[in-house]
Amino acid sequence: MEKRFDKIIEKIREGQRFLIASHVNPEGDAVGSLLGLTLVLRTMGKDVTPYLEDPVPGIYDFLPGAETIVHDLKGLGRFDALIAVDCGMKDRLGDMLNAFDHGGLLINLDHHATNDHYGDLNVVDADASATGEVIYDLCRAGGIDITKEAAINLYVAIHTDTGSFRYSCTSAESLIKAGELVRCGADPSDISMRVYENYPPVRFRLLALVLSTLEVIKACGKGHGGDIATLTVSTDMFDKTAAEPDQADGFVNYARGIEGVEVGALFRECPGDEYKISLRSKSYMDVGAVAMSLGGGGHARAAGCTLKGSLEDVKSKVLGVVNEAMQKSCTP
Amino acid sequence: MEKRFDKIIEKIREGQRFLIASHVNPEGDAVGSLLGLTLVLRTMGKDVTPYLEDPVPGIYDFLPGAETIVHDLKGLGRFDALIAVDCGMKDRLGDMLNAFDHGGLLINLDHHATNDHYGDLNVVDADASATGEVIYDLCRAGGIDITKEAAINLYVAIHTDTGSFRYSCTSAESLIKAGELVRCGADPSDISMRVYENYPPVRFRLLALVLSTLEVIKACGKGHGGDIATLTVSTDMFDKTAAEPDQADGFVNYARGIEGVEVGALFRECPGDEYKISLRSKSYMDVGAVAMSLGGGGHARAAGCTLKGSLEDVKSKVLGVVNEAMQKSCTP
Repeated sequence: MEKRFDKIIEKIREGQRFLIASHVNPEGDAVGSLLGLTLVLRTMGKDVTPYLEDPVPGIYDFLPGAETIVHDLKGLGRFDALIAVDCGMKDRLGDMLNAFDHGGLLINLDHHATNDHYGDLNVVDADASATGEVIYDLCRAGGIDITKEAAINLYVAIHTDTGSFRYSCTSAESLIKAGELVRCGADPSDISMRVYENYPPVRFRLLALVLSTLEVIKACGKGHGGDIATLTVSTDMFDKTAAEPDQADGFVNYARGIEGVEVGALFRECPGDEYKISLRSKSYMDVGAVAMSLGGGGHARAAGCTLKGSLEDVKSKVLGVVNEAMQKSCTP
Repeated sequence: MEKRFDKIIEKIREGQRFLIASHVNPEGDAVGSLLGLTLVLRTMGKDVTPYLEDPVPGIYDFLPGAETIVHDLKGLGRFDALIAVDCGMKDRLGDMLNAFDHGGLLINLDHHATNDHYGDLNVVDADASATGEVIYDLCRAGGIDITKEAAINLYVAIHTDTGSFRYSCTSAESLIKAGELVRCGADPSDISMRVYENYPPVRFRLLALVLSTLEVIKACGKGHGGDIATLTVSTDMFDKTAAEPDQADGFVNYARGIEGVEVGALFRECPGDEYKISLRSKSYMDVGAVAMSLGGGGHARAAGCTLKGSLEDVKSKVLGVVNEAMQKSCTP
């Protein structure tokens, strides 16, 4: 049995009233971990309030317990503990929650390597693909039952944070724990359908326009595996399709998804003569360093920056920097 | 230890020369299972020839051992056994192999429920998502080592046959075995990138044109979850983009992937005043029955048929049948 959860499990067993919260702008791991832990504690007979400062994205409405999430702290009284899940910084719990006196312990369960251990008790596991894995481990460590409803939530947490078991954070443990959650009752195909086949039609109308801008540039002397692919989204395209800017999220993956391409770039026009640039690389280019040199940031395989200017100028600037970095990594 | 593999493991241990083969038109499970078992047996010191009648699709060139696959049986001599993997019918091994006298036992390892047990020894496990799972089980049953190279192949087999762990065949065991294969050395993100992010640019140029034909039709009285979405690919689009017809494979999933849509349909124009229609459903419509009533066939969630006529006529015929079936399933 794992020792790292001992103190937290003891406090959960002792307490009765719990407030559980996750970060603003919640995604799958935030909502899934929040509700997974909420349902696990309710099965233990605890009185649990799940809190999010921001609304839950519509695709997660189907998650068991989603209807019990509150967005207002008024009149909630005192708790034995506030448990923060998937929240790398205390600030990201939201202003209202940070100003709220919950009166109890602060427990911090997370997987972000940058988490500064802001809790009274902390388990931060940077090797976990998702906080959903950390909560799974907590249940196993405490011999705590995972119901079908809790399993669905924890499965969604792992499934979304690993991009359907495709991102580099996917470990043997991510897959094995997901399998165990299926044994507990989570349905992998039903969940995939609800999470990944639930787009508004307008997303695909926008994608049609964006894909027509595809350019593939031979960038690297090596030939194979050194190309750059670009896509562009203009404000005009948003106007034509009546799509919101967030409907272009993830489109950069179509640029990266081309054979021989190492770096995919998406140029999204924003109001005020500005472009938001998303960069993705496949296997060796550090696009985080590229983005940083352009005033942005991110990780080695996923990064971004914002630049002012015309599309022509912005593209030439970004591609110049990418090209230079490519050439360096490609010298024989 | 599993008894069902006892006899097969005994024959493998006793023998020295093995011919392993899979079906014509090989996909991920065929190639991955073929090479996975080949490498496993080679590690046991056996002399193994992996055979495919058809060429290996380019995206699987990276699989360890792929360069040792032969497509010609001339001068190969006699074998202790021919092991057929992922091949539901003996015929599908190909004409050349079926005419070849291998001189030994025929062992049949598969997961197709329709497999007629054509081998001298058979393990057909219809609960397995992929034959890759069956070979994994065989190794575990025999205490046989799975090297990193074999693990990559078996992972690809499971990964592709489950559609990245999204199809309804995905079980707890699929995920847990995939996790164990990662422990053996398979890299989930590297494999995903090679298999799912390796498209020719022309596929996305074609997709841009196809997505512009998207229509969403309110079909079911229930309102939510009963819509039909259609996409059309014309021969004109293939001409414009210089794309081959198989580049439209999978586009029907964009139609199904829309919120509120139960049935997605893709109409692909073929030479000779003909349309190939692909149908996909999300959760309750039996599109196999729809396709069958139109002279085609398939499964409940994935089916197809071919019809002669103009696009207008063909669409109206297919949508009429789908609509009728929808209305029946939607009556309160």
